[in-house]
Amino acid sequence: MSAPVQESMPGVAVTPTSGGVRLVEVGPRDGLQNERVRLSVRDRVTMVTRLMDAGLRDIEVGSFVSPRWIPQMAQTREVLEQLPRREGVRHWVLVPNARGLEDALAAGATHLAVFVSSSETHNQRNLNRTIDESLEDVRAVCRRAREAGCELRGYISTVFGCPWEGAIPFDRVLRLGEALRDVGCSQISFGDTTGMGHPTQVRASMARVLQHFEVEQVALHLHDTRGLALTNALMGWEVGVRTFDGSVGGMGGCPYAAGASGNVGTEDLVHLFSTMGIETGVDLGALGAVARWLEEVHGATLRSPYFRYVLSQRGS
Amino acid sequence: MSAPVQESMPGVAVTPTSGGVRLVEVGPRDGLQNERVRLSVRDRVTMVTRLMDAGLRDIEVGSFVSPRWIPQMAQTREVLEQLPRREGVRHWVLVPNARGLEDALAAGATHLAVFVSSSETHNQRNLNRTIDESLEDVRAVCRRAREAGCELRGYISTVFGCPWEGAIPFDRVLRLGEALRDVGCSQISFGDTTGMGHPTQVRASMARVLQHFEVEQVALHLHDTRGLALTNALMGWEVGVRTFDGSVGGMGGCPYAAGASGNVGTEDLVHLFSTMGIETGVDLGALGAVARWLEEVHGATLRSPYFRYVLSQRGS
Repeated sequence: MSAPVQESMPGVAVTPTSGGVRLVEVGPRDGLQNERVRLSVRDRVTMVTRLMDAGLRDIEVGSFVSPRWIPQMAQTREVLEQLPRREGVRHWVLVPNARGLEDALAAGATHLAVFVSSSETHNQRNLNRTIDESLEDVRAVCRRAREAGCELRGYISTVFGCPWEGAIPFDRVLRLGEALRDVGCSQISFGDTTGMGHPTQVRASMARVLQHFEVEQVALHLHDTRGLALTNALMGWEVGVRTFDGSVGGMGGCPYAAGASGNVGTEDLVHLFSTMGIETGVDLGALGAVARWLEEVHGATLRSPYFRYVLSQRGS
Repeated sequence: MSAPVQESMPGVAVTPTSGGVRLVEVGPRDGLQNERVRLSVRDRVTMVTRLMDAGLRDIEVGSFVSPRWIPQMAQTREVLEQLPRREGVRHWVLVPNARGLEDALAAGATHLAVFVSSSETHNQRNLNRTIDESLEDVRAVCRRAREAGCELRGYISTVFGCPWEGAIPFDRVLRLGEALRDVGCSQISFGDTTGMGHPTQVRASMARVLQHFEVEQVALHLHDTRGLALTNALMGWEVGVRTFDGSVGGMGGCPYAAGASGNVGTEDLVHLFSTMGIETGVDLGALGAVARWLEEVHGATLRSPYFRYVLSQRGS
């Protein structure tokens, strides 16, 4: 059966919002590294190029970790070298340690992301270090990166809950954020790594964050593991967050919830904000074409609800 | 890999909310009638009984429509007759016309639902009548049902947008709601039939509804077609809606979006509200067991994000 489904937004008038939101596309790194699908250097370059074509201006294109840890991210140097540069587009790469930093600098990276967990157990399991030890490593990496003229972004993991520790004291999250800012991170991305955040919590937490940080310094990194990512994005937006990380098609996820949704889909964020009259600068059609290519050519299973909806319309 | 994922809600303290929400389970009718899976009378009775066991107090158990239209709903009389009665539990049945009403009354139904669309095109295609003609039919059905001592519930379809007409003038929706109230419907369920609603719209629309109706008279019936059902539920709740329709496992949907999500999952509503400290009276574990039974025994494909998350935890 066919119905001329139209995507203009009906009903009560929406108050247009001045100013848009900034989306940071993490699919080529956080997405790919948690999927079984393996992309060649050439395909990774194609993916990032198409994401730029869709209007994304901040894209995390890979990481400089050991290929023994994360084989999907091997050859990030080649990806970075082959990517076309465009004015106003930032290609971010993740660096876990001093070794990764030197590799990133040798590859010509100029936008680096560092990370630390707000859960001792998660940090210990992920990095085999205490939070304080990791923070020392991050400080050294950031100092050297700043000297090399790089821009820095900091991730804090598990800020809305940890699978092992449960609740994380939010004072600790704020202290970590301030430590990352002090060592030169221009933006801190507050990560709901396993999708345990919920709307009243995210609203209250991000309101606190924005008492301590400028709006440009704050990003919200959501996962849709339990289906609450968009309610959390909405609450973050309501209290003033204006930067959101997303992954095309909702690619990525959490090794402890195979089959559940992963990172919040970039198209889900674009769609949500578009219904609210909030500009993202991203073309939903072009973004959907990237997701289709990942699914149909490369065999990814993408769980973004909006992507699945768009697919459902193709056959009708 | 296994992680002791814990479901207590971490982070910033949530303000406990006095008073809960009332959930109306529509899976055995709105869910089943839009799925390929066919349940026998015995299995439909089992399904409703298990939903009662899970704590649901309002359950739509079937409809009295022609089995040529909707074969899944044939033998609703037998379902109703075989269902165990429990104090405080209401078994609702849908009646589309005078013939259906007589069948329902003959089967001993005491809680009846009637419906009309707020889109002329949708009403015409669905019922082959103008909205005014349908409203006349509904008036006659309601008059007779009230004489027979029945309680009545009214559905209005496509209130946040129609696939053919796009935006629906919300004044028309309010007039239809008042007409249904005037003929004796104790509650009006405002339906986002094809999941076109979005959060700012739902917030503004339901705030208007609650200027015209008592809170007990209002329900929100959401579909997750484009992934916005929970953001819409949250906005509805924020402006005062306290009754929500849901379908176990997210069963059901829309014939124009095969493969997309359908009705909002009852478990997604229960989970969302539980994170906010809002009581629903429904046991998530028992509800999930019904969804697993529908999927594993009966071959339904259930898209409720929370159900999929719970499934992902079984193998870990």
